Amino acid sequence: MQLKDLIFRTRSYRRFDGAHNVSYPALESLIGLARLSASAANRQPLKYLLYNEPEDCEMIFPSIAWAAYLTEWHGPIRGERPTGYIIILGDKSITESFSVDHGIAAQSIMLGATEIGLGGCMIASIKREELRKTLNIPDRFEILLILALGKPVENIIVDRVKGNDIKYWRDEKSNHHVPKRSLDELILKL
Amino acid sequence: MQLKDLIFRTRSYRRFDGAHNVSYPALESLIGLARLSASAANRQPLKYLLYNEPEDCEMIFPSIAWAAYLTEWHGPIRGERPTGYIIILGDKSITESFSVDHGIAAQSIMLGATEIGLGGCMIASIKREELRKTLNIPDRFEILLILALGKPVENIIVDRVKGNDIKYWRDEKSNHHVPKRSLDELILKL
Repeated sequence: MQLKDLIFRTRSYRRFDGAHNVSYPALESLIGLARLSASAANRQPLKYLLYNEPEDCEMIFPSIAWAAYLTEWHGPIRGERPTGYIIILGDKSITESFSVDHGIAAQSIMLGATEIGLGGCMIASIKREELRKTLNIPDRFEILLILALGKPVENIIVDRVKGNDIKYWRDEKSNHHVPKRSLDELILKL
Repeated sequence: MQLKDLIFRTRSYRRFDGAHNVSYPALESLIGLARLSASAANRQPLKYLLYNEPEDCEMIFPSIAWAAYLTEWHGPIRGERPTGYIIILGDKSITESFSVDHGIAAQSIMLGATEIGLGGCMIASIKREELRKTLNIPDRFEILLILALGKPVENIIVDRVKGNDIKYWRDEKSNHHVPKRSLDELILKL
């Protein structure tokens, strides 16, 4: 698949087929992509926790804040929740500054997920102390991002930003609309 | 190309064919990839400056710190310097916090560069105030990353990390070696 198509299909999905299991080898293969991605000063301070067991997924779910702009939606209902998680940690024994390594790694992982028929959402809005306790994550690791994964069941439509309103929204048919700024707005001419 | 190959080929190149021009439409197409990539809360606060004219490239070059681990190498010689630049800015009128948006965008751009036969390096080690003056970048924009681009002329070999030494190095044939940590080291089992 051309990269443009892959990126276009890599939307932030928040509703999944709860009956579709994400396999552990699939999660491992995604970390293989992150492993070969760029890292500031090649330090490679990121570590990964992988989860695909239903009971683990159930434990992780409450630590996530879902879709801030959809104020009447409190996250996916049972049966539409993520069936796999990758938690990206920063290993403070290597460096205290993770730069944008986790952004780079997360993009590699999410593109890889699309390629194998999965999808998901990068989530930085995390109840970190709650999650740390739930999963017994040692203090040595900073919790950077959660990637919630599964087989998406929602339709996402990319719109143009109108005015300056970048809030995503759902229409009456539950299509999820994401307004994106135009190329003209993004490329500055000084 | 499969994503795994694309990522494997997306190395951090620092030596280029100075006679190969990066076209402006190519740079624009790369921003098209960044445009459709994820952004925290969909704010899309990143803006981009694109340069492919030789005199602009020459102006930008001195603001970059090259390859910290190669202490005896002060950056590419004339004739091997980048022939295109994308400067990623954060628009503070949209948000003061750019999260990992620039990491995500930079990875999309660098993968896209590989796909069209280019390569380059994400650089965060920037003489920011010097660059701001040189290019007249208004204070409203934070200088986040420089992506130095061109047609690579160096051979990069991915090795395994030995001991804990992650420093890249050059062998006597000028091959650039990059030690990467093993998957076993990256995936934590708590």
